[in-house]
Amino acid sequence: MITKQTVREAAARIAGHGRVTPILTSPYLDDIAGRRVLVKAECLQHTGSFKFRGSWNAVASLPADQRAKGVIAFSSGNHAQGVANAARAHGIPATIVMPSDAPALKIANTRALGASVVLYDRATEDREEVAARVNEDRTLIRPFDDERVIAGQGTVGLEIASQVADQINGPTDVLVCCGGGGLTGGIALALDGTSLRARPVEPEGFDDVTRSLASGRIEENDRVSGSICDAIITKAPGDITFPIMVARCGPGIVVSEDDALRAMVLAFLRLKIVVEPGGAVALAAALFHGDRIDGDAVVAVTTGGNVDPDVFRMALDKFGDIA
Amino acid sequence: MITKQTVREAAARIAGHGRVTPILTSPYLDDIAGRRVLVKAECLQHTGSFKFRGSWNAVASLPADQRAKGVIAFSSGNHAQGVANAARAHGIPATIVMPSDAPALKIANTRALGASVVLYDRATEDREEVAARVNEDRTLIRPFDDERVIAGQGTVGLEIASQVADQINGPTDVLVCCGGGGLTGGIALALDGTSLRARPVEPEGFDDVTRSLASGRIEENDRVSGSICDAIITKAPGDITFPIMVARCGPGIVVSEDDALRAMVLAFLRLKIVVEPGGAVALAAALFHGDRIDGDAVVAVTTGGNVDPDVFRMALDKFGDIA
Repeated sequence: MITKQTVREAAARIAGHGRVTPILTSPYLDDIAGRRVLVKAECLQHTGSFKFRGSWNAVASLPADQRAKGVIAFSSGNHAQGVANAARAHGIPATIVMPSDAPALKIANTRALGASVVLYDRATEDREEVAARVNEDRTLIRPFDDERVIAGQGTVGLEIASQVADQINGPTDVLVCCGGGGLTGGIALALDGTSLRARPVEPEGFDDVTRSLASGRIEENDRVSGSICDAIITKAPGDITFPIMVARCGPGIVVSEDDALRAMVLAFLRLKIVVEPGGAVALAAALFHGDRIDGDAVVAVTTGGNVDPDVFRMALDKFGDIA
Repeated sequence: MITKQTVREAAARIAGHGRVTPILTSPYLDDIAGRRVLVKAECLQHTGSFKFRGSWNAVASLPADQRAKGVIAFSSGNHAQGVANAARAHGIPATIVMPSDAPALKIANTRALGASVVLYDRATEDREEVAARVNEDRTLIRPFDDERVIAGQGTVGLEIASQVADQINGPTDVLVCCGGGGLTGGIALALDGTSLRARPVEPEGFDDVTRSLASGRIEENDRVSGSICDAIITKAPGDITFPIMVARCGPGIVVSEDDALRAMVLAFLRLKIVVEPGGAVALAAALFHGDRIDGDAVVAVTTGGNVDPDVFRMALDKFGDIA
């Protein structure tokens, strides 16, 4: 069973390889939110997202003979880059199965990290069948429903607890951009025994985790494409991640795509960091949905920054008016 | 006389107030540069630039009775925000004299920090006369030719020396975006006794420091406006900064405006940080002028991130093609 101790063991594996990402703040953001906003800038992690951590821990945990045969992953982008990076660093081959409509930057980066990228059409092909054709005897690194991956992502939570300890008073929420719950669940485990509580944040129309936490059973999204928040769109929470979240997380928060774009622009203007839409929903919740939050401070994790220039320009066009 | 010890004293004043900004790296940038590029992401500093440091040290160093009367500064933007921020934190009034063609974001931010902003027309008005009308008995905080300011900026160098010590072998250059030389000189002082050497980087047409170091005497620019690198455009190095740089700095490097814009886009894509044109010239030198640099690693300081959305969009339009 995965516990806070499992997360600590992952932290020991990642130490010296991952980056301890900073907590950033801005008086402008505090004014908008009506409370202090502590931003965990995980978009500054290697490969541009927290996925570095879980992939690293998963690959580093494999027995040497199994690891040597290589790894395979399905991903629309950030997990792909994490696995490709971990494989390259460990000197083993990686195959990544990606949808052909994944952001161009994520496909290009995954290839540049030395992975074999196999593209498939989400509308007409089954990714499991595509993977079966290329898998051979490589180890599958799942994007979230894997204890090694969850533990790796949870190291974000250990850092947060240490970094914000002297900046909070009493119970404080940690808002996390949530797809399948690997990061949210991992952070929740890491926060056991602290005054911090993890809460998932999702985009409208893809709020499977929020609904699942409310109903007490796994609920699914109607669709898994068609959102600019591509990084955090999944069918449903995982069999491993869901019970972890049920036991530990506060209620989910749902934000609009425009909220996410506005948060991206404010992160650009006020924090000088680049955040992708799916990586901005937690900050959006902190800034624009403060009525759902208690306390005089809130932590928001900006989980990734792998955004295509076209999407970033669109966000600046729409919400970049300074006046 | 200002020495490394003066910089250490400034670091003690700033500790707990300034942010220790991270060193970021990317294998993609290393490939472009042909060597390891260690980026000191000072754009993530409070107020979005290193100017926080010098302003803080200058204000914190004033005798209490003098400080209580307030401060005044001339600035096109980043120094303005630094002084306004330090004044607000110390509970004293600040007047900032800014050219009316300064970036809108910088004017808006300076006002939002509570300073009285006095705009003047660079073409028709003399800023010293404008300042004389409003100065009363406030203490002038100069942008670079002031020992307290230089010492504050130099704290960037103390951090760099500590952060990169285990990542370099032998003599290594620290490339610094350079205006009047406050940051470059301060960093140079902080690097005394290390294997690191500061080198100024400037935009074409505004290379006063590079020419001054080459000739051994203070040379001036023909003009002080008309560059997108507004943050680092000054008439000439200062009477205090120039001798510090002569004694310690390597030769200057000059880059084009397009180099700076390309470096901004690569920082966006690869490091997930927002850098303004004037804050990107050192990274541009590391990436595109490697023939002017020796060693298997180089440090580049990205000094500020206060860029208007329109300028950022223009950079993405021009150089944001991923393919």
